[in-house]
Amino acid sequence: MNKYSFKNDYSEGAHPNIIKVLSETNFLQTEGYSQDIFCKKAAEIIKSYLQNDDVDIHFVTGGTQANLIMISSILRPYEAVISADTGHINVHEAGAIENCGHKIITIDSTDGKLYPEQIIEVLDKHTDEHMVKPKAVYISNSTETGTVYKLKELQNISNICKQHNLYLVLDGARIASAIVSSKSNLTLQDIAEYCDIFTIGGTKNGAMLGEAIVICNENFKEDFRYNIKQKGGLIAKGRILGIQFLELFKNNLYYDLARHANDMSFLIADELKKLGVNFLYPVESNQIFPILDNKLINYLLEKFEFYIWEKLDENTSAIRIVTSWATDEKSVKKFIEEVKSFLTKIN
Amino acid sequence: MNKYSFKNDYSEGAHPNIIKVLSETNFLQTEGYSQDIFCKKAAEIIKSYLQNDDVDIHFVTGGTQANLIMISSILRPYEAVISADTGHINVHEAGAIENCGHKIITIDSTDGKLYPEQIIEVLDKHTDEHMVKPKAVYISNSTETGTVYKLKELQNISNICKQHNLYLVLDGARIASAIVSSKSNLTLQDIAEYCDIFTIGGTKNGAMLGEAIVICNENFKEDFRYNIKQKGGLIAKGRILGIQFLELFKNNLYYDLARHANDMSFLIADELKKLGVNFLYPVESNQIFPILDNKLINYLLEKFEFYIWEKLDENTSAIRIVTSWATDEKSVKKFIEEVKSFLTKIN
Amino acid sequence: MNKYSFKNDYSEGAHPNIIKVLSETNFLQTEGYSQDIFCKKAAEIIKSYLQNDDVDIHFVTGGTQANLIMISSILRPYEAVISADTGHINVHEAGAIENCGHKIITIDSTDGKLYPEQIIEVLDKHTDEHMVKPKAVYISNSTETGTVYKLKELQNISNICKQHNLYLVLDGARIASAIVSSKSNLTLQDIAEYCDIFTIGGTKNGAMLGEAIVICNENFKEDFRYNIKQKGGLIAKGRILGIQFLELFKNNLYYDLARHANDMSFLIADELKKLGVNFLYPVESNQIFPILDNKLINYLLEKFEFYIWEKLDENTSAIRIVTSWATDEKSVKKFIEEVKSFLTKIN
Amino acid sequence: MNKYSFKNDYSEGAHPNIIKVLSETNFLQTEGYSQDIFCKKAAEIIKSYLQNDDVDIHFVTGGTQANLIMISSILRPYEAVISADTGHINVHEAGAIENCGHKIITIDSTDGKLYPEQIIEVLDKHTDEHMVKPKAVYISNSTETGTVYKLKELQNISNICKQHNLYLVLDGARIASAIVSSKSNLTLQDIAEYCDIFTIGGTKNGAMLGEAIVICNENFKEDFRYNIKQKGGLIAKGRILGIQFLELFKNNLYYDLARHANDMSFLIADELKKLGVNFLYPVESNQIFPILDNKLINYLLEKFEFYIWEKLDENTSAIRIVTSWATDEKSVKKFIEEVKSFLTKIN
Repeated sequence: MNKYSFKNDYSEGAHPNIIKVLSETNFLQTEGYSQDIFCKKAAEIIKSYLQNDDVDIHFVTGGTQANLIMISSILRPYEAVISADTGHINVHEAGAIENCGHKIITIDSTDGKLYPEQIIEVLDKHTDEHMVKPKAVYISNSTETGTVYKLKELQNISNICKQHNLYLVLDGARIASAIVSSKSNLTLQDIAEYCDIFTIGGTKNGAMLGEAIVICNENFKEDFRYNIKQKGGLIAKGRILGIQFLELFKNNLYYDLARHANDMSFLIADELKKLGVNFLYPVESNQIFPILDNKLINYLLEKFEFYIWEKLDENTSAIRIVTSWATDEKSVKKFIEEVKSFLTKIN
Repeated sequence: MNKYSFKNDYSEGAHPNIIKVLSETNFLQTEGYSQDIFCKKAAEIIKSYLQNDDVDIHFVTGGTQANLIMISSILRPYEAVISADTGHINVHEAGAIENCGHKIITIDSTDGKLYPEQIIEVLDKHTDEHMVKPKAVYISNSTETGTVYKLKELQNISNICKQHNLYLVLDGARIASAIVSSKSNLTLQDIAEYCDIFTIGGTKNGAMLGEAIVICNENFKEDFRYNIKQKGGLIAKGRILGIQFLELFKNNLYYDLARHANDMSFLIADELKKLGVNFLYPVESNQIFPILDNKLINYLLEKFEFYIWEKLDENTSAIRIVTSWATDEKSVKKFIEEVKSFLTKIN
Repeated sequence: MNKYSFKNDYSEGAHPNIIKVLSETNFLQTEGYSQDIFCKKAAEIIKSYLQNDDVDIHFVTGGTQANLIMISSILRPYEAVISADTGHINVHEAGAIENCGHKIITIDSTDGKLYPEQIIEVLDKHTDEHMVKPKAVYISNSTETGTVYKLKELQNISNICKQHNLYLVLDGARIASAIVSSKSNLTLQDIAEYCDIFTIGGTKNGAMLGEAIVICNENFKEDFRYNIKQKGGLIAKGRILGIQFLELFKNNLYYDLARHANDMSFLIADELKKLGVNFLYPVESNQIFPILDNKLINYLLEKFEFYIWEKLDENTSAIRIVTSWATDEKSVKKFIEEVKSFLTKIN
Repeated sequence: MNKYSFKNDYSEGAHPNIIKVLSETNFLQTEGYSQDIFCKKAAEIIKSYLQNDDVDIHFVTGGTQANLIMISSILRPYEAVISADTGHINVHEAGAIENCGHKIITIDSTDGKLYPEQIIEVLDKHTDEHMVKPKAVYISNSTETGTVYKLKELQNISNICKQHNLYLVLDGARIASAIVSSKSNLTLQDIAEYCDIFTIGGTKNGAMLGEAIVICNENFKEDFRYNIKQKGGLIAKGRILGIQFLELFKNNLYYDLARHANDMSFLIADELKKLGVNFLYPVESNQIFPILDNKLINYLLEKFEFYIWEKLDENTSAIRIVTSWATDEKSVKKFIEEVKSFLTKIN
């Protein structure tokens, strides 16, 4: 790729600290399948961040894998999971959840988030054994549209779940960006308090690969490694996952990386807003969706890579700009300059 | 682990070349999900090794994942796979194949290998729709008992498969050790010629993680990435798999590493044989199973780590010694010395 | 049930002819698992109705079973089926299709039917292996809202399916009522011509139980009995299914029964229309959805059984009236009288 | 079939009482999906036979369906069921259990039964999450080889199961023949006491179709109808299942029918034994396996239908003779006469 890419937050490798420690520990012999000292320490450090010693932590290689393992391990065959229609499990996991046997009940979403009254509506419609039984609620934070949950919003969903015996599952592939977002007051500890099970994503925030699954609900802890193994998620050299999370959670690196990602997306957003640009979704994390004239889009595509997200009318489209821990500030500024330059020219 | 371990061939990290290139390429931006230049080049170099341009190559993270993706993607729901009872899919994958919906029809094996007449016997018993329909044959090479297939043996199985419309699937988690074994005349090209689909294992021969799936049968190529994605095997930074295989197949490193592993296991085996030790299975690759007096075993366990494989009688057991690309020759020699020293003492 | 019921078309047993022949043939010894002479003859007579000798016909016990067997046997794991959101497989089969591993892609429907442009829209959104691959289209005729397809409508869907390599699956649980409907010019032969696989429902048109699966697409014929067996659909005394379909298709009984059902529903509908009643969906088959004042509904519920389908506003709701082969004309007339009587009183 | 058949116990229709009541109740309107008065009464009468009011009873259409619903509803994805290698779920259900995601761990059996020490051996081998977790034990009574469990044998298995947290599942497709067998002291009440879930078979003892699932373990009761529905086992006119079990359990008909079946098989067995015939398995129920000279077998096949079960050597084979509630005593006597006549001739 010759053009600078804002296509996603997994275009580069890993944070250099990770490569360094992988190299340093390379010839140390360890136990296999995540029963090594690095995985143990990584679990400890995450627990200390969560200020919660009662959770179980497991490491798997990717987000789809984490989601399918979490959801298939907590549901009975006829139980279903409720998700926003924009949810990753519904759109971009090639039917992984259904392939594990479970229906996803979708809720039309305008901002990627779920709200209590929508969940109630689903429950009201599912009344007998001719239908699936809604049993889990899946949310992602940040969402697929870049929005983030506030503490109160998570509490509200959690309350509804508790009242109706629903499990709350949170997909944290981009949890770092959500937690450090200036638009949210939610902490990692809150998430561990209000969810039954959730992930802390590594891949999109500085790891080569890896997602941590955090099990908060006591009932889901037993035999969880069987679930991981059966789905092909238990890797022989599990140490490489432990090492990465250990490095990410040293000295707040995990949050620092996410702050950089957000700084870069907000920098772009703020400048575009000054130029009168509107956004398809609220700017709240490292994914932003500016609405631009198609001519400007084409101009930018000559110099940068990014996805056209949605055609809005004949002349305008929303694009998706994703920044990351690795995003180069100079390229960000160049992007802004190019927008300004184009707009100046045509005016 | 303070004691030197012969427990398995995944106790260490990755070959240093791999770490080096991961580091060097770290900030290069690439496409996600294995559509990057490294995966493309890795596929090319493997094809050149296979002297076969008509295969499709995909990279996934682990062996169980590779097996479940391969087998579930080629079978209809009622079709079953034939395996030795010792086969990895039957014993050590937590029911992954069954969880994908397919029965494993097992054949009692004394050496970990399958033979044509055993396959015929299975076919003769499966006569109508009240039973599953045998449709694939799964073999591993080297096998779980350390044995390796010879060219003629693979040809024989392949012939039976072709005659009876069975697909031949080869689990190559330890294919390198099998290919370079002095006990086999089989080449990687042969395997590509006679199998419908197989893996080339990275994890146990120098990679941090990664298995290459090689699709030879034209019918299995279409849409294969859907299968990988749905099973959680498509990782965002697929580049790290491509980079590893690219390094492994540069300058024959892959074979050199396997040769070292075999040299180490044969060194131990040869010395033990001189001391009158018998083996549970023929010594043919990097896994060997010497039969030792329990007192000797306990003595060795004070200094080394390895698995007790099977208790044979009150006084003797078979142990499993696994060597690898990373096995330290000095530790091997120390192991031999300890055996000699113990035997001298008691005589 | 003391009140006369219009709740569904499976409140009674079977047409007396069926009971009679079950009795007459009771002690005849036959082959098991639908390989008896009755199943063979029933298949023959259905083929003659279809004027098509190239189809395969199998008998299973119920509609959900038929749908899950059909759909799971034609799709690869990552392939999905498109359905109206009102479709039986989406709403009222407890997630049976997903439990077989497949996503149902839903289309919002106002009348229970699918239209080509909606299918195209789905295809346009499913572009790569991160999403499921739409591969089948499921329609029901008559639909769950009582509407029926016209020949041209079925042809249009079939064309789109052929152009895009989609299989067309038709759920004919209430196919008889659709075929004889005055609102449709579609024949059973047309359905066999344009669909890849479909069912002819027995349960809701005079049988105790039983659905015939008709396979038109050559590729789905091989090994189909394996699919039925594996899903628990092959019953030992398959003869009882054969006997029922044989009787139903003798002397056009199947159509005569459906005509009676439709006559009864249209009789109610016509009278209600005269009284100014509107309907939630067009009146086209044996399921009708009159919109009534809640007071009238409560009055009727004292004398009849039927489902309240949907509350429309504070004062009115749509109810569902289902008639069948067994519906008693006197009770139908009484129902109409009660409506009239109530309306007279309040005016 | 012109020759009299001893191939199985489902060659005829249903006991005439059943047909009679189906006819008498035919036009009664009832609730659908087994929520009718007949199913309720049938459950009551079975509970009274079991002298147990704490069980839940459900009716499904066939044995494979019952087995797959029972087993898939009680196991987590990675949990496996232990069965004799001869077990119906292992051999003759086309992989239904595996298709629901669960491995069957087989135990080599000589008589079709399981013994505690064999179960212990399986448990000893399954030690960690790389393997499936054995969680249920499946037995059939009578077994597929015609043998029956004695009370003490069932108690022993039950004890082992309780000690190791294994569920005990009993396939009672031929439970009637087992219960009334002179070779067993086991009662239906015992089975309800010692098993977690089991079936009472209708199809092979006088019903057209139908198996009753009896749930004894409190934990399996909730939501069980969801499982039935999702697997396609909930039929619209569930009444026909209720009516049949109601009739079968009136005035001990169920046992009387089974006694007739056993009388017929023992009559044949006793006479053959007098003639010096040996049997492949002990004669204990309505399935017997005499070992005959191939010439005699061929002679008999000209006049009767039965299965050749296993070729034992060049000259002799075991055949399977199955008798049932409908078996004609005259034909039984004719069969014995033909054997005698042939043996006289050749001597």
